[in-house]
Amino acid sequence: MGLIVQKFGGSSVADADRVRNVARIITETYRRGHRVVVVLSAQGDTTDDLIAKAAEINPHASKREMDMLLSTGEQISCALCAMAIEAMGYPVVSLTGRQAGIQTNSSYGDARISRIQTERIQNELDKRSIVIVTGFQGVNRTGDITTLGRGGSDTSAVALAASLHADLCQIYTDVDGVYTADPRLVPKARKLEEITYDEMLELATLGAQVLHNRSVEMAKRYNVNLEVLSSFSGNPGTKVKEVVKTMEKSYISGVAKDKDIARLALVGLEDEPGIAFRIFSLLAKEKVNVDIILQSIGRENKKDISFTVAKGDLENATRVLTENRDYIGFDHIDINDNIAKVSIVGAGMIHNPGVAAGMFEALFNAGINIHMISTSEIKVSVLVDLADADHAVRVTHDRFFGGNDLY
Amino acid sequence: MGLIVQKFGGSSVADADRVRNVARIITETYRRGHRVVVVLSAQGDTTDDLIAKAAEINPHASKREMDMLLSTGEQISCALCAMAIEAMGYPVVSLTGRQAGIQTNSSYGDARISRIQTERIQNELDKRSIVIVTGFQGVNRTGDITTLGRGGSDTSAVALAASLHADLCQIYTDVDGVYTADPRLVPKARKLEEITYDEMLELATLGAQVLHNRSVEMAKRYNVNLEVLSSFSGNPGTKVKEVVKTMEKSYISGVAKDKDIARLALVGLEDEPGIAFRIFSLLAKEKVNVDIILQSIGRENKKDISFTVAKGDLENATRVLTENRDYIGFDHIDINDNIAKVSIVGAGMIHNPGVAAGMFEALFNAGINIHMISTSEIKVSVLVDLADADHAVRVTHDRFFGGNDLY
Repeated sequence: MGLIVQKFGGSSVADADRVRNVARIITETYRRGHRVVVVLSAQGDTTDDLIAKAAEINPHASKREMDMLLSTGEQISCALCAMAIEAMGYPVVSLTGRQAGIQTNSSYGDARISRIQTERIQNELDKRSIVIVTGFQGVNRTGDITTLGRGGSDTSAVALAASLHADLCQIYTDVDGVYTADPRLVPKARKLEEITYDEMLELATLGAQVLHNRSVEMAKRYNVNLEVLSSFSGNPGTKVKEVVKTMEKSYISGVAKDKDIARLALVGLEDEPGIAFRIFSLLAKEKVNVDIILQSIGRENKKDISFTVAKGDLENATRVLTENRDYIGFDHIDINDNIAKVSIVGAGMIHNPGVAAGMFEALFNAGINIHMISTSEIKVSVLVDLADADHAVRVTHDRFFGGNDLY
Repeated sequence: MGLIVQKFGGSSVADADRVRNVARIITETYRRGHRVVVVLSAQGDTTDDLIAKAAEINPHASKREMDMLLSTGEQISCALCAMAIEAMGYPVVSLTGRQAGIQTNSSYGDARISRIQTERIQNELDKRSIVIVTGFQGVNRTGDITTLGRGGSDTSAVALAASLHADLCQIYTDVDGVYTADPRLVPKARKLEEITYDEMLELATLGAQVLHNRSVEMAKRYNVNLEVLSSFSGNPGTKVKEVVKTMEKSYISGVAKDKDIARLALVGLEDEPGIAFRIFSLLAKEKVNVDIILQSIGRENKKDISFTVAKGDLENATRVLTENRDYIGFDHIDINDNIAKVSIVGAGMIHNPGVAAGMFEALFNAGINIHMISTSEIKVSVLVDLADADHAVRVTHDRFFGGNDLY
């Protein structure tokens, strides 16, 4: 018997039947003797509908008023879920971010949680109530409503679990857990029982983007035991924790693919100190996130620097670099947005130098050309042509998770 | 230049175009140099849609969770209206009931405002912002959201006007003002320029139920200058105040009709003290509101007591009286729910004894039978057959507001 935080996403509460299904999961946990705190997203398309309403009136509405508007979505789903639990005869109370004591900074639309005053929740738990909290939102010092941006409800759940010292934080979603590859792409992909925080962070783009990085980072920092599972199947999910059992046969925990990527290359740079600093501080000022960076070995006092950015940042990055061509000092920019990144992730590869080579071999055998390579302690990423990406995922998965006979 | 509170009902903000129209009215007031506080209802059918969503999940949901749910409607319309005003280039901020400092008791679904802490609103007004406040809601001591029940947004507006010592409280609705009779029924009905609080209270059921009694009572108590006007026409409306100019030719200010009424008669009561007390304290305990009460003169130690209730209370009233038949001591209950109440209202009638007689004469000339009569200092009400009600309104209106040639 412990304290469990359960988070359900928008598709899990999309209509009355699904709200009732979620209420059943919650009350079953409660009946087993646990104290239960629930975090909910807005129902199905509610947030998109509200955004459309706003756009019709003012496409450039202030973020403060957008947050005022969007926060109603979670308030609605929480009240409805509380009603479903009432109908089943259990004590329950729904709380807004403010009532739950979730305090944030004032970055409307992308706020960060600064602290959670848990008194009200503790009071309700002491009264043996199930507590339903609106995800995705809090209040700033002025008492104005803020929202947490992408993946906000996951973050709310992990932050509550950390503040309440919960024994487990369950993230219910529409997939069964974390897979070794996207099951829609690789039918032989299998569900992982366990995965470390670091692997999960690297795999964030794997499959149906089951967990947002921000929540995983927070879970790692506060050592919150996470579990990713489906609100539909009832199957056990994937546990995310600091150290996992080393029962897994493979050195890697999954193969991930990212198509939302573009590569820029600055060609003909002077081979002198400070060039990289100039480039990446300019991009940082424009809030362009840079992923893989590759610098060629200098020849005849000239060098090239290549790096990847999200496709949405490509235009902005190109503009700022072009504007500062003289300051940086390059010949021309070469752009390729017809590429994808394929990665293998696994804590086991640190001590197994053959892992990267295994991936390169699999791609070579399949005739897939590699444009760039980047490695970290638990990850190997390669850039390939967009058209080769799915094939690359399949052959890499086959290389590490074996042939037909094994599964 | 003063402080004006403007309230807009749900039909005035039903869609994007209407929200923009309301934003125009607000910003025009602001441009004339006034400080403006706006109170909004939920858009069009939003509240009904939310109630339907709740009913699908739990037809007996707690009032606390219903308030949590329903309060989102006003939050949405306020955020959207603020966005429309932003788009027009004016400084604006939307506030929830809580942010606006509206404190209530804990009667969820029918809460009473206990006080308004106006600091936040004052701060925003001092910054020259237009302030948009969610109508219909507040928070109790625990910080839980409450709603004010029927006519709640009007009450919010008047309470804010009283707390902020506003110079004027404008109630924008879908009718032009207060008429001498329902214009749909009596085409010759004319709009009143001014009316007293007391007359307005008596006329509450006149026409399109333009103002809820609760807000008029509060306006009278705190001497808030009210104006009822249309958000569509741009015409001047009707002013509601303590004393009006005596320019009006007629002694009465309007003819009202109420079809939502049923009459019960307890027949064969003992003619002894305490009978009325027993009956009406039993009904009060069941929260049945009794309107007209009529007691027949006793004969042979027996008497009858008749009274009217809202149709919705009829079943409940009949049940409690039948259950207590021995305690009260009556022979049988006679019920008539095929009736209507027609009333004339006017402060002028106190000093003009012929007014009631004029109404009775008009009804007699039209061959309309009167079942019950009840009078107050500023009102004469009669019960007539439901089928005669509209005709009764027309002939009464004609009697006091003249024939065709006058208008």
